[in-house]
Amino acid sequence: MDPRLVRVHAADNVAIVVDREGIPAAATCSDGLKTREFVPQSHKVALSDIAAGEAIVRYGTPIGFASRAIDRGSWVREELLTIPPAPDLDTLPLATAVPQPQPPLEGFTFDGYRNFDGTAGTRNILALTTTVQCVAPTAEFAAERIRRELLPRYPGVDDVVALGHSYGCGVAIDAPGAAVPIRTVRNLALNPNLGGERLVVSLGCEKLQPDRLFPIDESCACGGDNLVRLQDERHRGFSEMVAAILEAAEKRLEVLDRRRRVACPASDLVVGLQCGGSDAFSGVTANPAVGHAADLLVRAGATMIFSEVTEVRDAAHLITPRCRSEEVARGFIREMRWFDDYLRIGGADRSANTTPGNRRGGLANIVEKAMGSVVKSGTSALVAVTAPGERVKKKGLVFAATPASDFICGTLQLAAGMNMHVFTTGEGTPYGLAMAPVIKVASRTALARRWPDLIDLDAGRIATGETTIEALGRELFDLILGVASGRRRTCAEKLRLHNPLALFNPGPVT
Amino acid sequence: MDPRLVRVHAADNVAIVVDREGIPAAATCSDGLKTREFVPQSHKVALSDIAAGEAIVRYGTPIGFASRAIDRGSWVREELLTIPPAPDLDTLPLATAVPQPQPPLEGFTFDGYRNFDGTAGTRNILALTTTVQCVAPTAEFAAERIRRELLPRYPGVDDVVALGHSYGCGVAIDAPGAAVPIRTVRNLALNPNLGGERLVVSLGCEKLQPDRLFPIDESCACGGDNLVRLQDERHRGFSEMVAAILEAAEKRLEVLDRRRRVACPASDLVVGLQCGGSDAFSGVTANPAVGHAADLLVRAGATMIFSEVTEVRDAAHLITPRCRSEEVARGFIREMRWFDDYLRIGGADRSANTTPGNRRGGLANIVEKAMGSVVKSGTSALVAVTAPGERVKKKGLVFAATPASDFICGTLQLAAGMNMHVFTTGEGTPYGLAMAPVIKVASRTALARRWPDLIDLDAGRIATGETTIEALGRELFDLILGVASGRRRTCAEKLRLHNPLALFNPGPVT
Repeated sequence: MDPRLVRVHAADNVAIVVDREGIPAAATCSDGLKTREFVPQSHKVALSDIAAGEAIVRYGTPIGFASRAIDRGSWVREELLTIPPAPDLDTLPLATAVPQPQPPLEGFTFDGYRNFDGTAGTRNILALTTTVQCVAPTAEFAAERIRRELLPRYPGVDDVVALGHSYGCGVAIDAPGAAVPIRTVRNLALNPNLGGERLVVSLGCEKLQPDRLFPIDESCACGGDNLVRLQDERHRGFSEMVAAILEAAEKRLEVLDRRRRVACPASDLVVGLQCGGSDAFSGVTANPAVGHAADLLVRAGATMIFSEVTEVRDAAHLITPRCRSEEVARGFIREMRWFDDYLRIGGADRSANTTPGNRRGGLANIVEKAMGSVVKSGTSALVAVTAPGERVKKKGLVFAATPASDFICGTLQLAAGMNMHVFTTGEGTPYGLAMAPVIKVASRTALARRWPDLIDLDAGRIATGETTIEALGRELFDLILGVASGRRRTCAEKLRLHNPLALFNPGPVT
Repeated sequence: MDPRLVRVHAADNVAIVVDREGIPAAATCSDGLKTREFVPQSHKVALSDIAAGEAIVRYGTPIGFASRAIDRGSWVREELLTIPPAPDLDTLPLATAVPQPQPPLEGFTFDGYRNFDGTAGTRNILALTTTVQCVAPTAEFAAERIRRELLPRYPGVDDVVALGHSYGCGVAIDAPGAAVPIRTVRNLALNPNLGGERLVVSLGCEKLQPDRLFPIDESCACGGDNLVRLQDERHRGFSEMVAAILEAAEKRLEVLDRRRRVACPASDLVVGLQCGGSDAFSGVTANPAVGHAADLLVRAGATMIFSEVTEVRDAAHLITPRCRSEEVARGFIREMRWFDDYLRIGGADRSANTTPGNRRGGLANIVEKAMGSVVKSGTSALVAVTAPGERVKKKGLVFAATPASDFICGTLQLAAGMNMHVFTTGEGTPYGLAMAPVIKVASRTALARRWPDLIDLDAGRIATGETTIEALGRELFDLILGVASGRRRTCAEKLRLHNPLALFNPGPVT
C-alpha cells in the first residue's frame, strides 16, 4: 500500500504522515505526492511549494509562517515555522455564528446514584476532605483502614478516598489568588460521585479553617458530626484520632451503602474532556471522535466540559463566535485575559506550552496543538464559562477555565462537578483519578496495542480508515454510558491508578 | 502554687502565662503581679503600665506598639498591638557582631552509612525519583511491590520511597522561577539518606526530561540502567513498566544492602530545623532548647540548617550582625529581598504568616512569631546562605532560604542535604517525612502527654521548671545522635507518617 497522508481541511497546505515507520525520501504517497526527504510518522509534509513568509495552513488555519521557502514534498519541521501572534482579545467576534441546536437525542439513560442536590453520581465514593497538608498522612492512614476494615461490610460503597492536597496553611490565604484553591477544595467535596456525605479532617490551627469550606455542625462529638479535628483535646494520640475518623466514616458509609443505582437521564452526566501527551494525530483521530461524542451528549442533554486555557487561547477566534450570547463570549475572553496576565507576571507566555513529546509527535507549536485540542469541544454552542475551581451549573457545552497541566485540569474539572472523564493521548500516559472514572482514548493504534491494559479506546483506527470519526464517536458515547452505569470499568479503575490531586494556587506561599 | 509567668528578657514589659488553665482575674502571680482580668495560657500579660504608642517588648525586642494604654496586669491581646515595619534591608549591620567560635566538642559520633560522595546517611533508603506527576501512581504502585516482594530479601535496606511531586510538565519550564523546582527534584535524589543509588522513573514526553536532572546512561536496557521510561516501546503495557522498575530497583537494592553502619563523626550530620503549629511557648521552651542543641552540634562540627524566610524576616537585624562575613550577610539580605518581592507580586506581605492557631496560642503577629522562631538557630555565627532548592555544602550554621510552609520547607531542607530533621510544635501536628527521621519536640507538656505516640521530646518541662533549656538541649543532642544511628526510631517512623513532598514553584503553571 502506498504511504498515507491525512489532510484535515481543504485549505491545508500540509498533511500528516500516517505510516508508523514514516515515509522515506522519493516515495509516492497515496495521493500522488512525492516526498523529497524522510518524514516521520505524525509529522507534516508540504502539499505544495510554500514561499518564505507564506502561511502554513492546517485545520484551515495558519499555524505559522514559513521561515524560508519550503518545497512540495518536504518535511515541514518545527524550525521552519514562525509562530503567529495570539488572537487579539479586543477584536474577537462575539456570538456571531451561534450553532443551531441539533435535534435532541431522547431516551438515553445510565444507572447512577441520585444525590439530594439533584446531581447524580457514576460512582458511590466516601471522601475524606482535608483542610491542610498536615493531616494528609493521617487521613491516608485512616482511609486505608476504612478500606480494609469497614468497606467489606458496606459492599454498596465503591471506595474511600482521602482528598489530600498541598494547600491550607503556609499560604497567603487572603491574597487575591487564594479564592481559587479554597473554592476548589470546597467544590471537590461536593462532587456528585461523593454522594453528599461530607467528612472533613482538619488539624485545628491551620489557616484554612473548616468553616471557610462549609457550615460545620459543632454540636456532636469531636467537633461536629462531619468534622474530625486532630488537635481536639479529646483525642489521646494518633490512635484515637484515627479511631475518631473511622467512627465518623462509618456513619457516612451507612448512608452511602443504602443507595442503589437508578436509571438517570444522560443529562445527569457531567463529562470532563482533556488531552495529555498529545501528538499530531490527536487532532485528527481521538479529539474529533471525542468532539463527535460531545455533540451527541449535548444533544442528549448532558454537560460537556472542555478546559485548558493555553490549549484554547490560539483558537479563541473560533470559540467566541460559537458562544450562545455576547455575555458568554465576554466571560471566555475574561478567562483568556486573566491567564495571559498570570503568565506574563511569571515571565512566561503561551509558548511555554508544547512539550518535547508534543514536538517529537509532530506538533510544531502551541497554535497547531491548540487547533487539535479544541476539536474535542465538537460543534455545539458554548453555553457557559466558569473560572478555575467554580462549579458548573449549566447543561450543554461549557468552558471551565483551567491550566493545561493534566492534574491541575483534572482536579479543577472534578471541582466543576465532573462525574466522568475522557482523556485523549498520543504519546501515552498511565493517567487516572480517584474520584471519577477516566476513559483513555489513544490517538494511534500502535499505542493502543502496546498498552492494552491502559488504553480504553483506540481512535487510531480512524487514521487507518478502519472506522470513521462518527462511528468512533458513537462508540465512545456508548462506552461513557456503560462506564457511568458501572457495567464497565476503565483500565485506570482496574489498576487503581490515582494521580494525586493538584490544586491551582495562583497566590503566593508563605 | 501561685500562677506562673515566663519573662524571656530583662527588658520585656510582657510575660507569658504558664498555667494550663490560664490565670483568673485578680490573681497574684508568683512574682507578685496581680492580674486585672483572665489571661489564657501562653498569652501575654502586661508587667507594667504601657502607654498608648509605647513599645510592647518581648525577647528584648519591640513586637508591636500599644494601640491604647494598657494597665499592668492586663491581657495584652493581639488587637492591642500595631505591627512595626519590617527591618529595612538597606541599613542592616553586616557581620558587625560575629560570635567567636565556642570550644569544639570532640569525639561525638553516630553510626551512619558512608556515601561515595563523602556524605553520610542516617537511613539506607532506595528512592524512585520521578520527573513528572504523570508517573506518580505507577511509581507508587512499583514502590509498594518492591516493599512487599523485594525488601524482605534485602534486610539492610530501610525502605523504598517514590519521590512523587506535582512538577515536571504543564509548567513554564523556562520561566525565571523554574530553576527552583528543577534543582529541588535533582537535589532530593542526592540526599545522603538515599545512598547515591539513583533510579529515575520518567514518562518520556514530559518537559522535565531526565537529562535535565542527571547525566543519563542510555547504553543499557530500558533506556539506561538508572532510568525507566514508561513510554519506552519495549514495555508492553503497565505490567511490563512495573516489571522494568522492579528489575532496575533490584540492582540498586543489591548495592544498598551491602552497606553497613560505620562510626561517622557528628560533623556528618546535616540537621534541618523547623517549627510548625507554633504557640507563644515555642519561643520559650522548644525553640531555645533546639537552639542550644544547635550550638552543641555546631561545636561538634555538624551542619545546622534553619529556614522559613517569613519567620526570620522580622529578625533580620538580629541575623546579619551574626553572619561570618559581609558576603554571607549580603546573601541573607538577597534572599529576604527576593521573598519580599515574591510576596508583593502575589498581593501579599509578611503579615500573611501567622495562623489562627498561632494567634489562639498567644502569638500576636509575625514579629512575635519570628522572634520565637529564630531562637532555634542558637548563638553561632552564620557561615552560609543558600537559595531555595540548593544543596548546602558548608559545616556550621547555615540559613537555607525556604517558605515557612512545613512541607515546602521540609522538602527544600531535604534537597539541601538534610539527613536529620527536628520539628518543634506548640499546637501539635502529626508531621513526618519519608526521607529523613523527624524528631518532634513539643513546646508544652500538655501536648506531649496528650500525644505520646506523636511527640518525641517534651520541652514543656522547661516552662514548669522541671528542667532547663541547657539540659533539654543536651537531651535533644543525645537523641539526635541516637536516632541518627538507628538505635532509636522516631514516632513518625514507627507510624510511617510521610507527608508528601511539596515543591516550591515560584513560576507559573501552563
